Amino acid sequence: MRILTGLQPSGKLHVGNYFGAMKPAVELQGEGDSFYFIADYHSMTSGQDAEALRTNVRELAIDFLACGLDPERSVFFRQSAVPEVNELAWILSTVCPMSLLAKCHSYKDKTAQGIAANHALFAYPVLMAADILMYDANKVPVGKDQKQHLEVTRDLAVKLNEAYGENTVILPEPIIREETETVLGLDGRKMSKSYNNTLPIFGDEKKSKKLVMKIPTDSTPVEEPKNTEGSTIIALYKLFANETDVAQMITDHQSGGFGYGEFKKRLAEAYWDCFAPMRARREEILADQGYVEDVLKNGAERAREEATKVLDRVKKAVGLI
Amino acid sequence: MRILTGLQPSGKLHVGNYFGAMKPAVELQGEGDSFYFIADYHSMTSGQDAEALRTNVRELAIDFLACGLDPERSVFFRQSAVPEVNELAWILSTVCPMSLLAKCHSYKDKTAQGIAANHALFAYPVLMAADILMYDANKVPVGKDQKQHLEVTRDLAVKLNEAYGENTVILPEPIIREETETVLGLDGRKMSKSYNNTLPIFGDEKKSKKLVMKIPTDSTPVEEPKNTEGSTIIALYKLFANETDVAQMITDHQSGGFGYGEFKKRLAEAYWDCFAPMRARREEILADQGYVEDVLKNGAERAREEATKVLDRVKKAVGLI
Repeated sequence: MRILTGLQPSGKLHVGNYFGAMKPAVELQGEGDSFYFIADYHSMTSGQDAEALRTNVRELAIDFLACGLDPERSVFFRQSAVPEVNELAWILSTVCPMSLLAKCHSYKDKTAQGIAANHALFAYPVLMAADILMYDANKVPVGKDQKQHLEVTRDLAVKLNEAYGENTVILPEPIIREETETVLGLDGRKMSKSYNNTLPIFGDEKKSKKLVMKIPTDSTPVEEPKNTEGSTIIALYKLFANETDVAQMITDHQSGGFGYGEFKKRLAEAYWDCFAPMRARREEILADQGYVEDVLKNGAERAREEATKVLDRVKKAVGLI
Repeated sequence: MRILTGLQPSGKLHVGNYFGAMKPAVELQGEGDSFYFIADYHSMTSGQDAEALRTNVRELAIDFLACGLDPERSVFFRQSAVPEVNELAWILSTVCPMSLLAKCHSYKDKTAQGIAANHALFAYPVLMAADILMYDANKVPVGKDQKQHLEVTRDLAVKLNEAYGENTVILPEPIIREETETVLGLDGRKMSKSYNNTLPIFGDEKKSKKLVMKIPTDSTPVEEPKNTEGSTIIALYKLFANETDVAQMITDHQSGGFGYGEFKKRLAEAYWDCFAPMRARREEILADQGYVEDVLKNGAERAREEATKVLDRVKKAVGLI
């Protein structure tokens, strides 16, 4: 089984990214041959800031490694370091009906949000299909938002195989990610950079804990029982604390006698402790000069070995060689 | 000055292709650093026949060399042998408004002709822009039908430079090709495969001359003067014969006493003789096993040397390295 996962470099990692994407991705390492890439080409669909791209890619690589990606067990690389993907994308374009792209909701959604309606944004599902088909990946973990794109990938694979022969490319199967409960942000809405309600993974200790202390709460007096339903504090605490501590937190809410400040303190500690191993690993990585570059370079070489095999097979099938 | 020309591999070369595209392209060799490529990726926008693609690419390479392309003086390669072009195409897509592609007439024209509305057909002008910008070409010879695509190329170059700094890519200038008179086909309409009225360059002698003998003419008796206005015979003869012979042909039309059969014979001879040196060169090329492959391989290496330099500059500018 070969599993492929791509992550977009989009700035500082927060708790929502970690539990929603990075943790499930890293946990798949044991289950098969795993390929991870930093989707730098994709991130260019929605912005033109060279310095930000450079920084974000490096940060994502460091964060990913700090959070448990093991380059000995996995192939970890930048999307743009494998030019074969762009070649395959063109070939897929030749069997891709315009109508298939026109119905993709991500283009509509993003342009509705005000992102410039550029061709890369429109063509993104074709590049994503190439990313997947490039490595003969047969399993692709996808969340709800990417389900349609995997369907496009499968459609294009079928069309290419119909036009040029069975097994020109391998048809990938989705692993529908068990919906991790939405991670709540500090204001009780979904945690998202666009709501400015995020909790960083690798932030400054004082500032980060202060963010927790500012979670809005109601004015129930200390001695009275507190509502546990819809509590942002408890929802976040569940992510970081063990079951015993979570049960205690709930009991203490119900019994009364504890103020929100106390609960927030416990949450801040649990949050901070939860990422202690990742912070330590991150320091190690940063101290090891050239480590990240070497990992990505080595990963790109391994990825290209696979990509070259597949591209060679496809180019022969379509008559380019 | 660096000049770039691409030709699509689309089957057997005919007299219309030769005078309309190949001859002017070959004549530019003296005027600067010249790059020629076989646009195999482009030809995939309108068909999915692996064997035909393979044959057509090889035939076009042989024909191009037979017609005077000199691999010592020029860089001659296949488009798909330079993967840097696909990388640059993606980068250009990120600054390419959808509206710019939506207004391109070639997509509309081709889908109106019944070619499947695939994404590659739509994205073709972006790949063409990458073809041109890839080699810092500053002069691009274009006919009327490609003028709009060169405008798209210039637009994309300006947008990329605006977003990422001056001279990220070089702005190319068109060389508007002096409109060669439309080459008439055997039925008096424009010579075109779709009208089935073509005269091959490298066909069988008997069959090819027979095609000339079948040019429709009126029923003016031998002894009477013949009309020279709108004469397909004279129009074609002008392509192949020298001025003295053309003058003689016109005089003989006007004087009467000669039948159309005689004129067609002269035309057939002139046509056949015109391409004698190309036929001889073609035989040499075919006898030299591996020659064509070596030329293209060597050309691709030289093209990639240039392409790598430009891509490196662009990737640095946009923050990918």
